[in-house]
Amino acid sequence: MTNPTAAMLVIGDEILSGRTRDSNMHFLAGELTRVGIALREVRIVADVHEEIAEAVRALSTRYTHLFTSGGIGPTHDDITADAVAQAMRVRIGHRADAMALLKAHYDRSGMPFNEARQRMARIPDGATLIDNPVSTAPGFTIGNVHVMAGVPGIFQAMVASVLPQLTGGPPLLSQSFRVERGEGEIATDFGALAAEFPDLSMGSYPFIQNGAHGTNLVIRGSDAGRLAEAMVKLTRLFG
Amino acid sequence: MTNPTAAMLVIGDEILSGRTRDSNMHFLAGELTRVGIALREVRIVADVHEEIAEAVRALSTRYTHLFTSGGIGPTHDDITADAVAQAMRVRIGHRADAMALLKAHYDRSGMPFNEARQRMARIPDGATLIDNPVSTAPGFTIGNVHVMAGVPGIFQAMVASVLPQLTGGPPLLSQSFRVERGEGEIATDFGALAAEFPDLSMGSYPFIQNGAHGTNLVIRGSDAGRLAEAMVKLTRLFG
Repeated sequence: MTNPTAAMLVIGDEILSGRTRDSNMHFLAGELTRVGIALREVRIVADVHEEIAEAVRALSTRYTHLFTSGGIGPTHDDITADAVAQAMRVRIGHRADAMALLKAHYDRSGMPFNEARQRMARIPDGATLIDNPVSTAPGFTIGNVHVMAGVPGIFQAMVASVLPQLTGGPPLLSQSFRVERGEGEIATDFGALAAEFPDLSMGSYPFIQNGAHGTNLVIRGSDAGRLAEAMVKLTRLFG
Repeated sequence: MTNPTAAMLVIGDEILSGRTRDSNMHFLAGELTRVGIALREVRIVADVHEEIAEAVRALSTRYTHLFTSGGIGPTHDDITADAVAQAMRVRIGHRADAMALLKAHYDRSGMPFNEARQRMARIPDGATLIDNPVSTAPGFTIGNVHVMAGVPGIFQAMVASVLPQLTGGPPLLSQSFRVERGEGEIATDFGALAAEFPDLSMGSYPFIQNGAHGTNLVIRGSDAGRLAEAMVKLTRLFG
């Protein structure tokens, strides 16, 4: 049984300028690993219509799922919905159910449901809404593309409502082993072990602590038995 | 005067699995902004030869500079140099000056300069070495592609030796202004202001604090006079 694949597209000038440090990617990576969907690629692009559309086309074609973050608010730089509609070759307009949700929300809050706020009801034709329990303005799923807000609290709530609806694979397991030796010392034996277990993925991550070189060895896979077998050999080699 | 552009390619399964949180991207974004190089796109791909090569080809063609992070160590999963050589259509082999640097380093440390460590002297033909003051194994620049280590301390040292050699543009300035109102309330006026200053980039970043909605408005550009002019109008609108 193989695992479905995924990509993520982060939309936002503020991350590329270094002003903000993205946290949605790290959060989504962990959640996808838990449900057995393999995150294979991430892209971060600016708030530019054609660049968003091109990335959506490329990534939605290549992977089982594409998750996007950012650019679905009420301001002029929120252009994700329009770019996704173009990439998926569908029309976009103010949708009645999204308009109703938002109108009720602003009526309750005593705030005007003005033109800018109505923009958040612009949803590509054929999409399914993603619930936003934090601030109402919905995300949406169209085809295999899941479009979510960039504000971390809202992004996380939307991921929580989308993921249970997707078919995952066996959980992606990982085990790690720390050795107090540099990578160059363990590389040959570790490479031979990796060749012996082509069904598992083995990576080595060097670190420097108090001036000494060490390496974290990580084995990943979805077959717990094979993982345990490899860990026994790893421990024998470097323990 | 326009600003040179850049992309970054982060290579590493450990970030896609959620095990590690990338910090090199945020660091590079800040450094590039400081020297007036506009970071326009970031991609994160797995340790897979063809995926690295394809991303290097696409990004080095599209932007003035490409910076890569990760995958240049001594283990079997370190395949960045080979993938970059393929993408740039040049040969790769153990280079004499890199071999000499590394041999001297391991001789000094009393560690064997074994086959795995010698892999770190594999450099694409025609490349220039990037100094590694932390652990000797060099990065390299080939064409407009700057290949650097993934360990943050080494990545940062390599960026420090590469950036002064590049031609930047006028510093990318930014000013921000915090309003205690939601995006939907300021969107129309803010959008009109953005349209009035097409040479500047204006973004709005909503936040929720103690249950209340607020927005950080950010104006970016490289002309300090225009930026000041826009900030005066912004303050008049929302101050």
